[in-house]
Amino acid sequence: MSVVFPKGFTTASIAAGISAHAGKKDLALVVNNGPLDAAAGVFTSNRFCAAPVQWSRKAIADGHLRGVVINSGCANACTGQEGYAQAQAEAENFAKLAGFPQASDVAVCSTGMIGDLLPLDNLLDGMNKAFPTLSDSAEAGKESSIAILTTDTHPKTVEIEADGYRIGGMVKGSGMIAPQLATMICIITTDAVVTPEQMHEALEHGAEYSFNRIDVDGCMSTNDTVILLASGASGVTPDPAEFSANIAKATASLARQIVGDGEGSSHDIRITVSGATSEDAALACARAVAASNLLKCAICGNDPNWGRVVSSLGTVPADVAPYDPNDVTVDVNGVRVCDGGKPGQPRSLVTMEGQREVGIDIDLNTGSDAEATVWTDDLTHEYVHINADYES
Amino acid sequence: MSVVFPKGFTTASIAAGISAHAGKKDLALVVNNGPLDAAAGVFTSNRFCAAPVQWSRKAIADGHLRGVVINSGCANACTGQEGYAQAQAEAENFAKLAGFPQASDVAVCSTGMIGDLLPLDNLLDGMNKAFPTLSDSAEAGKESSIAILTTDTHPKTVEIEADGYRIGGMVKGSGMIAPQLATMICIITTDAVVTPEQMHEALEHGAEYSFNRIDVDGCMSTNDTVILLASGASGVTPDPAEFSANIAKATASLARQIVGDGEGSSHDIRITVSGATSEDAALACARAVAASNLLKCAICGNDPNWGRVVSSLGTVPADVAPYDPNDVTVDVNGVRVCDGGKPGQPRSLVTMEGQREVGIDIDLNTGSDAEATVWTDDLTHEYVHINADYES
Repeated sequence: MSVVFPKGFTTASIAAGISAHAGKKDLALVVNNGPLDAAAGVFTSNRFCAAPVQWSRKAIADGHLRGVVINSGCANACTGQEGYAQAQAEAENFAKLAGFPQASDVAVCSTGMIGDLLPLDNLLDGMNKAFPTLSDSAEAGKESSIAILTTDTHPKTVEIEADGYRIGGMVKGSGMIAPQLATMICIITTDAVVTPEQMHEALEHGAEYSFNRIDVDGCMSTNDTVILLASGASGVTPDPAEFSANIAKATASLARQIVGDGEGSSHDIRITVSGATSEDAALACARAVAASNLLKCAICGNDPNWGRVVSSLGTVPADVAPYDPNDVTVDVNGVRVCDGGKPGQPRSLVTMEGQREVGIDIDLNTGSDAEATVWTDDLTHEYVHINADYES
Repeated sequence: MSVVFPKGFTTASIAAGISAHAGKKDLALVVNNGPLDAAAGVFTSNRFCAAPVQWSRKAIADGHLRGVVINSGCANACTGQEGYAQAQAEAENFAKLAGFPQASDVAVCSTGMIGDLLPLDNLLDGMNKAFPTLSDSAEAGKESSIAILTTDTHPKTVEIEADGYRIGGMVKGSGMIAPQLATMICIITTDAVVTPEQMHEALEHGAEYSFNRIDVDGCMSTNDTVILLASGASGVTPDPAEFSANIAKATASLARQIVGDGEGSSHDIRITVSGATSEDAALACARAVAASNLLKCAICGNDPNWGRVVSSLGTVPADVAPYDPNDVTVDVNGVRVCDGGKPGQPRSLVTMEGQREVGIDIDLNTGSDAEATVWTDDLTHEYVHINADYES
């Protein structure tokens, strides 16, 4: 179902000849048929942001979008003015096909190799061919969620049946930035009656607690884009807090699916830091632990190596996260392996073999109860293989 | 020669039964026979710093040391008050053997598994047996440089013949923190007549431009220690600036050797950022690039993937390092693969197969000429193997 689960949306996809894999679907179109055309977006903060990001930021600035074009196989990043002109040409072509008043009614998203221009003729030709096939069928929704993938091993979608309205979505991202490829791209749709401001607030909040809390290899992409479109076709105006909570549920599901499909990963690692003086402090600690290659290798080897947890924790400056190392406890899958900064239960009590999910719970025991959770993947032979041994 | 290259120093080493590898030398002693006993040290900033670091920081606070005990095979980190008492017992035993006035004349360094107490009886017994064998022979110096190693594949030493005085040193550190093990430990000796203050300044400066500029896997250890000892036995009082330059030369050599022995690595990567508005800006950019797992995998696969260079560069906030992405150039092994934020020469022109050293030169072209260099290793299958598949 994906993006066509809510009323008012159609989608189409095609193998346009953008991807190096012949015959792979690599272009998807999403149309918001209204009656509303409200939109919000969050984008990468990378200073080398790609041409489609530059275009889409401007297009969405007025809070309105009527369509989105997404391609896999080429990121159109670091491509200068020519790349920007390509992004604009995509939007112009789509607006012309759909009869939208202006090109800025269309956002464009690209994912793939950095530093290559798009094969624009192929893309426009594919768009022209795909446009007449726009549909609100479940099959069309599923096919589009496949067309946007790169090294992902399976499509990732969400459907939420809320109180009188629906939310749907699809995301691309293999946890780690892919070989020769890049980016996470996410399109979320809803038929709720909501304003662009309300959507932006809900999306920022949802992204903060989902996409911004998966720290898979610390490599920020040039193309990350999350777009939320509202058609209003349900006629239902939700309570703003409830709407925001449902958007957060959608982004959390999609982010969790990205971690579950992390490149070469064999474990999904949940790192929860509690007992912190503030959420920011807890988050800084969780991020530091999630970034440790050594810990990620240990988890790959099914070793609950808490020394690698605390040595990463110890890199967070005291002014960022006040705590006493002698008060810290670390539980791995429920076993307290570090107690008060010293060895606790034997590591041999921890079971993680054959389990996809590993939980690391760190209690700073400051007397306050702020906490934060970050998800990451383990670091495996397969990750190095995917990112080192590909054909360049 | 190592630490006994300058006059006034003796050393001894022994297999004390600390390491899990039976028969491996794992204990080294270094004695400063004077006439001076000036000392300076720099230590890890990790908040979970190990007991020996806590002890040695206090011992060196007065600018004087007469001996150092170093063991491999156990880090004595995250071991609480009992671990601290062990570190103190080591120093007390050494002071008693050597007839030093006080235990605080002795620094202790440990490297190995975090979270285990030392086998103290073995260590003290080994110290008692090794003490009578203290010697200034080249062989003794070499053996000590071997005794401090963990997963290092070869000893790393330096000898500098300066103007009337000498500098010697040994370092342990396999580039990345080792499996179950941790830490970089470095002992540098000189027979120059220098003050503790002057030594501290020289060491801080030297460390900043060497050990603090190798960013191998971003994992800060609990035990990192660099100690500089001066005997004054040459009778030569060097020009302070010249002394400082020679210490920097020694630390640069040792740091470069650590990268060259990085765990599982197949390439040493030099990242130089120039044309920055300040050295700090250049350093922040170089560190961001050096921390990219994706780039490190690409170099392992001999791919000059500049997209992974600029996407890392783009994560540095503009207030930290002002530059225009459209002005940036990236050269890999002398080939300008990215020119003005866009593709430059074909990547196929870059040769790196069969070359241990890879040079990445990034010019921010801000009009200023500040620069900084950071060294790192590539990320290989062997790194994951060493850090995931070990026996725990």
